[in-house]
Amino acid sequence: MGRGGAVTLHEVARVAGVSPRTVSNVVNGYQHVAPHTRARVQAVIDELGYRTNAAARTLRTGRTGLLGLVLPALDQPYFAELARAVVREATAVGFTVVVDQTDGDPDRERELLLRGPRGAAFDALVLSPLALTAEDLLRAEPGRPVVLLGERTVGTTADHVHIDNVAAAREATAHLIAGGRRRIAAIGLQDAHEQTAAQRAEGFRRALADAGLPVDPALLRHVPSYERAHGHAAMSALLTNAEPPDAVFCFSDLLASGALRACLERGVRVPEGVAVLGFDDVEEVRYLTPSLSTVRPDREAIARAAVARVVARLDGGEAEAPAHDITVPHALVLRESTPA
Amino acid sequence: MGRGGAVTLHEVARVAGVSPRTVSNVVNGYQHVAPHTRARVQAVIDELGYRTNAAARTLRTGRTGLLGLVLPALDQPYFAELARAVVREATAVGFTVVVDQTDGDPDRERELLLRGPRGAAFDALVLSPLALTAEDLLRAEPGRPVVLLGERTVGTTADHVHIDNVAAAREATAHLIAGGRRRIAAIGLQDAHEQTAAQRAEGFRRALADAGLPVDPALLRHVPSYERAHGHAAMSALLTNAEPPDAVFCFSDLLASGALRACLERGVRVPEGVAVLGFDDVEEVRYLTPSLSTVRPDREAIARAAVARVVARLDGGEAEAPAHDITVPHALVLRESTPA
Repeated sequence: MGRGGAVTLHEVARVAGVSPRTVSNVVNGYQHVAPHTRARVQAVIDELGYRTNAAARTLRTGRTGLLGLVLPALDQPYFAELARAVVREATAVGFTVVVDQTDGDPDRERELLLRGPRGAAFDALVLSPLALTAEDLLRAEPGRPVVLLGERTVGTTADHVHIDNVAAAREATAHLIAGGRRRIAAIGLQDAHEQTAAQRAEGFRRALADAGLPVDPALLRHVPSYERAHGHAAMSALLTNAEPPDAVFCFSDLLASGALRACLERGVRVPEGVAVLGFDDVEEVRYLTPSLSTVRPDREAIARAAVARVVARLDGGEAEAPAHDITVPHALVLRESTPA
Repeated sequence: MGRGGAVTLHEVARVAGVSPRTVSNVVNGYQHVAPHTRARVQAVIDELGYRTNAAARTLRTGRTGLLGLVLPALDQPYFAELARAVVREATAVGFTVVVDQTDGDPDRERELLLRGPRGAAFDALVLSPLALTAEDLLRAEPGRPVVLLGERTVGTTADHVHIDNVAAAREATAHLIAGGRRRIAAIGLQDAHEQTAAQRAEGFRRALADAGLPVDPALLRHVPSYERAHGHAAMSALLTNAEPPDAVFCFSDLLASGALRACLERGVRVPEGVAVLGFDDVEEVRYLTPSLSTVRPDREAIARAAVARVVARLDGGEAEAPAHDITVPHALVLRESTPA
């Protein structure tokens, strides 16, 4: 079979009694090879199990057809649903998508983007950056398209697809205020360099200011990551406050799922006692009881825009175009966890 | 830059004034190249932007280092959590994992496995088969290791990693019976060719038989797939029965999430009115209220065993070994949705 062996083009040439150039021509599908020669070479390729497909195509076109999709975690539903959308869009235009996860590890993220074990095999990268800086990105392979998903503005030549987080958070908070809530907590603040969190916090603050409400620092909760357990812990702490909140805006649906559980296990009714509003609109929160009100980023639009930027840079004569900054729509989805 | 262009090994050779063989030697890292020649070739490679890494490695070793992981859907949490575990295990032994999804489409599954656009680039495939038959698998690239995850026994040379579904379903149902339930519904039966469903149904029936309870066909619910919406619809229908169930065993956590929602929105208390038990132990069901009792397959063990089989077949001298059938542990996880 020769599978996994080290059969080289030169061995094929030797066995077939032709030059390596001829083998290369056969492999690359060039027409100027005599039919009987082509047949002989192909027979040897088959016999030795010489693996040509992807490798030969790469040498011929300089393209691998591989699109790297780098996400912090495949088992966070927002990223899983986003990955599904990107895989669908990219597959439709002929890419094979390599999904890789960084586990939120900055070193792993850098490794994948900057010098990954096989990073050079990717024609382009689509990634949701959590730790990379502009400097990191500038060191990436020059000329390889990089599209950033999410809200981290880095000021590089990388294209960037995102929603308007400030506006989305402001609308979400305004909805809670319109429902009569006055002590509104926010769960999901992070270190200053996390721009998604910073922008959602900014929208939250603006909505309070719009309504003339003060920001109570005791109601602002930082979390190490956007997981259910952190939402649960933060809400549990808030409920033991001397003056507990009457609403909570969580910066992810997972945080909100944890917060909802914290309310219900303490006998706090949602939305009567505390209104809960999330962010992402992952499928699971439609099935919570009460079902969760949330902000829905248009994931299909994100995926479409990201793949379109890759194609424009690779094939559309925009290889050297300045960075595109693309804002896609979002919507406030109202369900049972907030007052009507 | 030459990125994306059609720079060939032969162009590099021409510009550098050396033979293609010499370029190949440099690319492959062979030592028998004069230092000054190596430096000149490398300079031309850099100047022309000749892409060598993955392609050259493939031609040299016959390996791409790519492991294909084919799953029906990335945004179903069980598969997302499984993918995460497999990516972790496979990355640890040096693979780059290409995660692809079939959308549950038999044609897409076949295409990926049997002749995928770049299927030949995978050193091995790990897949959760939903539609493939033994015949399909036998037509797959001979010699390429294929590891099946899940309960579909196909009788091929493919290795197979799974839990004991009959035993797991029997234990789950026995727990409901031990809690005093007598009218126990099952949601998740499927067409006869879906062995996971058939085995869980078999375990369910055996537990009823063990306790001398009859099987009421009105309490057995078929679903087209294991999604929340189908669990919701099936439970909603069961609750309108003349004699509704006092417990339900759902063959996935997503079905159970939908069923739980159906109970609560009709004012049926869980577990007092109806006990609900799921299957998979995805993270989200720990945060439902009530939190969901479920069956936990040992996902890490599944991932470890699958990657170990790939390595054994590729590197361990087991390329031609008979199919391994590996059963990994499961556990019944009891939470609030079933009586204590």
